[in-house]
Amino acid sequence: MSTAHRPGTGTGTGADTGTESRARADTSAERIARAALTRLLEPGSVLGTTAVRVWGAARALQILTGADTPGPDERQELSLVLSGEGTQLTERTWTKSLEGWAARTASLAPERDLESLGRLGGGLLIPGDAGWPPGADDLGAAAPVALWYRGTGPVPRRETTLAVVGSRDATAYGQSVTRTLASGAAARGLTMMSGGAYGIDAMAHRAALASGTGAPPTAAVMAGGLDRYYPAGHEDLLREVSARGLLLSEMPPGASPTRHRFLQRNRLIAGLSGAVVVVEARWRSGAQNTAGHALGIGREVGAVPGPVTSPQSAGCHRLLRESPAVVVTDLEEALALMPGGGPRAATAGPPAAEVGAPSGGGSSAARIHDHLTVEELLVYEALPLRSAVPVDRLCAAAGLGPGAVMGTLKKLQRQSLAEQLAAGWRRGPAVHG
Amino acid sequence: MSTAHRPGTGTGTGADTGTESRARADTSAERIARAALTRLLEPGSVLGTTAVRVWGAARALQILTGADTPGPDERQELSLVLSGEGTQLTERTWTKSLEGWAARTASLAPERDLESLGRLGGGLLIPGDAGWPPGADDLGAAAPVALWYRGTGPVPRRETTLAVVGSRDATAYGQSVTRTLASGAAARGLTMMSGGAYGIDAMAHRAALASGTGAPPTAAVMAGGLDRYYPAGHEDLLREVSARGLLLSEMPPGASPTRHRFLQRNRLIAGLSGAVVVVEARWRSGAQNTAGHALGIGREVGAVPGPVTSPQSAGCHRLLRESPAVVVTDLEEALALMPGGGPRAATAGPPAAEVGAPSGGGSSAARIHDHLTVEELLVYEALPLRSAVPVDRLCAAAGLGPGAVMGTLKKLQRQSLAEQLAAGWRRGPAVHG
Repeated sequence: MSTAHRPGTGTGTGADTGTESRARADTSAERIARAALTRLLEPGSVLGTTAVRVWGAARALQILTGADTPGPDERQELSLVLSGEGTQLTERTWTKSLEGWAARTASLAPERDLESLGRLGGGLLIPGDAGWPPGADDLGAAAPVALWYRGTGPVPRRETTLAVVGSRDATAYGQSVTRTLASGAAARGLTMMSGGAYGIDAMAHRAALASGTGAPPTAAVMAGGLDRYYPAGHEDLLREVSARGLLLSEMPPGASPTRHRFLQRNRLIAGLSGAVVVVEARWRSGAQNTAGHALGIGREVGAVPGPVTSPQSAGCHRLLRESPAVVVTDLEEALALMPGGGPRAATAGPPAAEVGAPSGGGSSAARIHDHLTVEELLVYEALPLRSAVPVDRLCAAAGLGPGAVMGTLKKLQRQSLAEQLAAGWRRGPAVHG
Repeated sequence: MSTAHRPGTGTGTGADTGTESRARADTSAERIARAALTRLLEPGSVLGTTAVRVWGAARALQILTGADTPGPDERQELSLVLSGEGTQLTERTWTKSLEGWAARTASLAPERDLESLGRLGGGLLIPGDAGWPPGADDLGAAAPVALWYRGTGPVPRRETTLAVVGSRDATAYGQSVTRTLASGAAARGLTMMSGGAYGIDAMAHRAALASGTGAPPTAAVMAGGLDRYYPAGHEDLLREVSARGLLLSEMPPGASPTRHRFLQRNRLIAGLSGAVVVVEARWRSGAQNTAGHALGIGREVGAVPGPVTSPQSAGCHRLLRESPAVVVTDLEEALALMPGGGPRAATAGPPAAEVGAPSGGGSSAARIHDHLTVEELLVYEALPLRSAVPVDRLCAAAGLGPGAVMGTLKKLQRQSLAEQLAAGWRRGPAVHG
């Protein structure tokens, strides 16, 4: 990979990092501490991430690994901040959490992890890095302590990142809609973000790789470490994403993609994207979990409807019924969810109040007459197709007086909707339906 | 037809009407005047219907046909009421309207119309009749002055009437969904109301005739007079509806189903039903017009989603985006729209916040673990499938202390999700996925 396109930060302990102008010291205490913390903490641990925020990464690492105990002031500050977030820190919770962290302390090897990702053309992003995505901090108390990456950068801003997620067992319909949305959005320069899974996720990445003009065209947020490709069947796809796009994870190399981490990965997708579109999802699904995270932090969520007979669309319909998610049927409607309306704002259709062709009439003819006033419509419909009739017959049929009928006939005549013959009036040549 | 099931009112001038206990005098001045007014006025004419409301039917007929002129008090009262409804009655509007009514005055023959419908097993319902549907009056200034009917009664209350409407060029998908909804709702005793058109409307009537237990199982609201069947291709269907259900129209016999009357017919469907479900509708469609009328008078509207690639679903998706219409995917969701939740209230699914199976995991396995706490999930996922591991390994993998891991293992063991061997712990026999 080209170093010129790396996320704007240090890149682990790789040999080439000293040549990057924006690189920080790869082995700063802060970076190493946060690298260690990504292995120590389960993602989304409110107690752990709050400790890091309150005490700083290095001091938090000391305390959470049991190398030191917090002073009374430190303990009180942590309790206060947690309490402000609605969490009471009990002695029991603290002791239990310390035991959990202690169980992982022996496995910490942050320098090795940084080196490992560096060899793979990646590194660790930490808050304050030029490449740190501000959207990650929108997750508040659950913001990641750091983000591992592989690939070309920069990490896109959420304003130019659209998440498209959905079922692993996608239907041909879901695949097709995903291709349309992802190709179109990527061609307009958006980064397509997804979870690298089978089905909808894979199609979103593939379509973006094929059509994308953004930097990067696509980003996959993984639940486990970036030293291996998961799922294994996506090795080729994820290799290409890491070569031409970006792989992201808050888990260090070697970490397995557990169920809990999948759920927490979904919150990262929500934080790092400007909006989330769910193309297909079963009634209970990870895509719905992603949508829930997104709605929780104020991101717009779109759901693509589908046949009510398709279990793969049940989750989308559920989102539409039970959440503020909005219907997305095409690219413009997806782009309109983005902050500021996306690269090109959607064109709004005419308001529903203007809709009005009757179900009993021909639909193509209906459109021709949509612009007519009620009076014009009454006269137009009173006109016979072939044999002309006098005005008084039209008056009775339309329920209008002679003045109104004559005035209206003239208007219709100008639009070729009425025609005057010797015997009277009939429909004009514009329409015979 | 059996006279016992007639709508509870007089039935025109048919010879048998004197035998009905609830029948009013068929030739009362009020009924005759309203019969005449249905031919004089275009449906939905605010000026005409307000005149009837303010002056009474007989006096309004006198004035609107030019047989008399309104006194200054009458004129002022009409102006006041119209003005209260936001309509200014100008001299020009009044003169023009009178001209329009005058054009139809010669064709009025209310006794003949009443006799004609009576011969067809029908008649005219007017406000105050026992069979008059109160829902019609919810249309306010646009309430019909009377309703022609054919068939068996009574006219169902809107609380037991569900409207199912949609495209004439319905897809197989739309037909299938309509059959499911209409059969199910009709089997629970609801009257299925629709417009008698091709496509969705026809399927709604047919399914109700096949499965219905209501009285009547179905009702078709027509845009033209009830002396002929429209569309002609539905002669057999509409004949059966009139034999076993109900045909309704505000137009007198002989009146043609014009475009304007189709749109006004849609407002009647909205008024006479408890809720409206749109199964399929193009971007511009009569079904959307019906939905708009329904929303305008506070009826619940449901829209059935479909493939975004189907033009027949575009109108439904538009309703979901642009109006308060809600997603309907099955019978229970349709019934839940009815006043009071319908014959059986819908069972709500679990709230979206509880949704949480990861997209990366197996979906059937996900369900088994949905009830686990985060701690249980962490330990469960740390357990190997085959070879057992000691507790300290589980602690490191799960990031939990020995006490927490042991307590959790016992809980998982009771659910057969964990199994203890000599060498330690592995997953239990409940799931291997």
